[in-house]
Amino acid sequence: MTATELARYIDHTMLKADAGPAEFDRLCDEAIRFGFRAVCVNSAWVQYVSRRLSDAGIAVCSVVGFPLGAMKSSAKAFEAKAAVADGAREIDMVLAVGAFKAGDAEYASDDIRWVREAIEPDTILKVIIETAMLSDDEKRAASALAANAGADFVKTCTGFGGGAASPEDIALMKDAAGPNVGVKASGGVRDYDTAMRMIDAGATRIGAVSSVAIMEGAGRCEE
Amino acid sequence: MTATELARYIDHTMLKADAGPAEFDRLCDEAIRFGFRAVCVNSAWVQYVSRRLSDAGIAVCSVVGFPLGAMKSSAKAFEAKAAVADGAREIDMVLAVGAFKAGDAEYASDDIRWVREAIEPDTILKVIIETAMLSDDEKRAASALAANAGADFVKTCTGFGGGAASPEDIALMKDAAGPNVGVKASGGVRDYDTAMRMIDAGATRIGAVSSVAIMEGAGRCEE
Repeated sequence: MTATELARYIDHTMLKADAGPAEFDRLCDEAIRFGFRAVCVNSAWVQYVSRRLSDAGIAVCSVVGFPLGAMKSSAKAFEAKAAVADGAREIDMVLAVGAFKAGDAEYASDDIRWVREAIEPDTILKVIIETAMLSDDEKRAASALAANAGADFVKTCTGFGGGAASPEDIALMKDAAGPNVGVKASGGVRDYDTAMRMIDAGATRIGAVSSVAIMEGAGRCEE
Repeated sequence: MTATELARYIDHTMLKADAGPAEFDRLCDEAIRFGFRAVCVNSAWVQYVSRRLSDAGIAVCSVVGFPLGAMKSSAKAFEAKAAVADGAREIDMVLAVGAFKAGDAEYASDDIRWVREAIEPDTILKVIIETAMLSDDEKRAASALAANAGADFVKTCTGFGGGAASPEDIALMKDAAGPNVGVKASGGVRDYDTAMRMIDAGATRIGAVSSVAIMEGAGRCEE
């Protein structure tokens, strides 16, 4: 895989509460320089980064109900729709982890459908299952549930709930979600070797804060 | 102060992503048993706890834009309005920390007004300024800004962004917010002595997960 190809796997991410225009300017500049697939931000910043990235061929991704997933479904749907209106073409929502773990699969599924129906059919929807809070059986069930509710991707971690992406979880989630759903590895993917292990395990997208470090590792491997 | 009086300072809190009905049942039962002022939950659980607490004289408080404060203003307003419709009588929203720290006081102020105007005038609005991310000057400015934008309380920490309430911050926030605005101490208030230090410094509300431990400490002091 060339560095250019690797860059198209990466959602370059900035979700810190105290990030401001300086951080988002840098995020966008780096995304343009390396040709990342998307930038991933909180919904308050979607309009700002969309303006900076217009015509750059880099998608804007907004998180929704983030990072706890315990926001009311109608509010997740509203936030997603508002983010799309501001320029987001991808939505990374958090599973209703508490309801799901308590056995209320119907609530967790309906929660995803609320968001799916609030956005355009061609808007990519990723569902973060927050692997650190789930057993392996729960990871499988959550991945299948998300796929059935209309997710385009299942995603490992928010980065705020502990844990990290692992090749084992990527393989498990890919198997459970089926061939038509992508898998995004996020949480603790901070260097080239880790990113490549995720892709080898089946990840079709990487979410990372340390995207530039990943690309620098790729550069060293090509030398 | 009697234990009964102390209990009326306490917002009994459960905000974990993976909390489910069992945790919220316990939260409500403890709130009734000790006579806490309110229970504080994520918006997905407001309807559930409101039903359990009907006629118990305990307010339901919903967090909004929690815990990052980087959700779009209109989405914070929607979430707050939906929570009130589900039974919330208090809203704890998170300041737009990133915009505020970057110097955009107008955005941070308008963000609060969006929520203030979306809820009933008698719904209590608290603004979490997330002290761990602010300098002392920023804490003062954020407290004054929140008061001017219609907050009934300023509040120290989300509990997810590091840091903890301190008597120094309580005094500083109380001074900056003025006499008509309450101060809620939250983050790291886990025992009776800490709770009393906050109240002595001027806190008019305590947010705690460990509310029962605080009350047990009060019981020992009365013996």
